[in-house]
Amino acid sequence: MKVRDLNEDRLLKILLTGLPEGRNVVTGPGDDCAVVQAAQGSREFLLLKADCVVEGIHYLPEHDPVRVGWKALCRAVSDVAAMGGEPLHALVTIFSPVDRSVSYWKGFYKGLSKAAKRFGIGIVGGETSRAPCAAVSVTLVGRVEAGRLITRAAGKPGDLLFVTGTLGGSIQGKHLDFVPRVAEGRWLSAHGYAHAMMDLSDGLASDLPRLATASGCGFELDPDLLPRTRGCNANEAMSDGEDYELLIAVPPRLADRLRRGWKETFPRLRLTEIGTLREPGISATALPQGFDHFFSCQQPRERAS
Amino acid sequence: MKVRDLNEDRLLKILLTGLPEGRNVVTGPGDDCAVVQAAQGSREFLLLKADCVVEGIHYLPEHDPVRVGWKALCRAVSDVAAMGGEPLHALVTIFSPVDRSVSYWKGFYKGLSKAAKRFGIGIVGGETSRAPCAAVSVTLVGRVEAGRLITRAAGKPGDLLFVTGTLGGSIQGKHLDFVPRVAEGRWLSAHGYAHAMMDLSDGLASDLPRLATASGCGFELDPDLLPRTRGCNANEAMSDGEDYELLIAVPPRLADRLRRGWKETFPRLRLTEIGTLREPGISATALPQGFDHFFSCQQPRERAS
Repeated sequence: MKVRDLNEDRLLKILLTGLPEGRNVVTGPGDDCAVVQAAQGSREFLLLKADCVVEGIHYLPEHDPVRVGWKALCRAVSDVAAMGGEPLHALVTIFSPVDRSVSYWKGFYKGLSKAAKRFGIGIVGGETSRAPCAAVSVTLVGRVEAGRLITRAAGKPGDLLFVTGTLGGSIQGKHLDFVPRVAEGRWLSAHGYAHAMMDLSDGLASDLPRLATASGCGFELDPDLLPRTRGCNANEAMSDGEDYELLIAVPPRLADRLRRGWKETFPRLRLTEIGTLREPGISATALPQGFDHFFSCQQPRERAS
Repeated sequence: MKVRDLNEDRLLKILLTGLPEGRNVVTGPGDDCAVVQAAQGSREFLLLKADCVVEGIHYLPEHDPVRVGWKALCRAVSDVAAMGGEPLHALVTIFSPVDRSVSYWKGFYKGLSKAAKRFGIGIVGGETSRAPCAAVSVTLVGRVEAGRLITRAAGKPGDLLFVTGTLGGSIQGKHLDFVPRVAEGRWLSAHGYAHAMMDLSDGLASDLPRLATASGCGFELDPDLLPRTRGCNANEAMSDGEDYELLIAVPPRLADRLRRGWKETFPRLRLTEIGTLREPGISATALPQGFDHFFSCQQPRERAS
C-alpha cells in the first residue's frame, strides 16, 4: 500500500494508533490543536499546533512569498482561534532548495512577521535545512483559560450550526490573504456561546462531518442557507476548502443572544445559521467531497456553475 | 544571493533579524531551545524546539525507518536535555512522496514511538502532507524549573569545559542510535554544576565557539584530551558532528565534586575535561571546520588518519 492510496485522515489513523499517551494531555491528536496543561496547578491550557505548507500543493512557486509567509503562520493561528484561544509563540522550519534566492525567504519572513505582529505572536525559533523541495513547517503555541476551551467534541443534538464569513472560491486569493478569526473566537469563548467549534480548512463538506463525529452527533444542513462567496454555487461553498472561517455549534437557548451580540461586536462579518446537529446516525444532507490537502493541488478549477 | 552561498547560521541571522518580540519570552532563537514562561505566576519554563530531518541529508533512503524515527525525535530531545529540562510533548509533521509505502512510515512511527516511550513523551499531534521529497519536522515541548535552566550564555572565564561520552565517527551508526543525555542533563541541573551547556550536534569545532560566543568568552582546548571514538583522530572528533553529547562549562570550585558525583551516578559514561573558557578574544586552539547540516550530506567519508 502506497501513501497515494490513502487520504490524510486514514493515513494519520494508521500512524497514530497505539502511540504512547503523554502526561498532562487534555486533548491529543484529532482536534484543531492538541491541548495540554500549561504547568502544575495552573488554570491555563497550552494549545499546540504543527502545520505545514508545501510548494506546489498549498501554494505555487509564482505566488508572492510575502503572502505565502502570511498564509503559513495564519493557518495555524486559525486553529488556535477555533479553540477559543490566543496565539503566543511560533517556531518555523524552512526547507529550501539551495538554488532558491535568499530574497525569496526574506519576503517569506516579511509576511510571517506581518502576521506575527498582527496577532501578538513571538517567533521564538527558526531552523533551516536544504532540501530537494521547498516547504515550511510552522508550530504554534497558544493559550486558553481552562474554562474557555472549545473543542470539536462537545456539540449536542439540537445545537444550531453557524459559520462566519462566506464560503467557497478561496483559490481566487483568499487562501493567501485570509484573516484568522482570533478576535471572534476569543469573544465566543469569553461568552460561552459555543458547545463546539472548529475552523473550516478542508471545506464544510469534509469538516462538518468531522465536528459531528467528534461530538457523537449527526447533522442536518440546508445548502440554500450557505453564505456563498460571490460567484460560487452551493457545491463550491461546501467543497472548495481553505475558507479559514469558524464553524460553531450553539445551544438553541443562546442563539438569539449570540446573533444580537455578534452584530454589535463584529458588524462587518457575517454570521449565518446553516443547520443543526442531530442524534447520531442522522445526516440529512448529501455532501460533495471536501478539499483534501493531501492530494488536491491548489490550482484554479473550472467552475461547474 | 542564493541559499547555497550561506551557511545555516548566516541565513538564520538574515531571516531572524527584526522579528517581533514575543510576550513571556525568556530566551528567543539562538540557544538549543527557546525558553518561555509556562503560565502566569508559574515557576516553570517551557522549552520549545523545532527540528527536522531531510532524506538524503540527515539520513539516507536505505536507512531503516525505525532508526530514522528514533533519530528524528531524539535530536530534539537532546536539545531539551542540554538546557537541563525534561521532554513532554511532541508534534510530528511528515512530508511524503505519494509513491512511498505506508509500511515505511509505520516503521518510522515505530522508532518515534520507541523514543517517546523511553523519554516519557506524548505524541500529541501529527500532520502529513504529500511532497516531492521525504522529510520530517518534529516539535518538542519540554519543561524546566526556573532555577534549573541552563543556557549557552552564562559561562564565565575560567570555567572548565567537559564533554560526555566520546566524539567523532557518528556516521558509523551512532547518528541513528544515540541516546540523548536527558538523565545526565537533569542531574547536572539538579546539582547546579553547570554555568552553561549545549548539545554537540554539529561537532565541537562548530559548537564550542557558539557556546563561548554566547557566553562572551574565548576558549582554550587541548586536542590531546579529547575523548575520541575508537578509530577517530582528533580532527574527526572535533568536526565529524552528530555526537549528541553534552558540552558543559563548570566553575572550577565545583569540578571535583562533579567528577566524584558523576562517577557514582553514571559509571558507564565518560565525562572528560577538555579545556577552559577564557577572557573574550582568547581562543588558543585552531579548530577544523564542523559539520554544517545545511550543506554536508551525511555520507561516510574517507578517513584522513
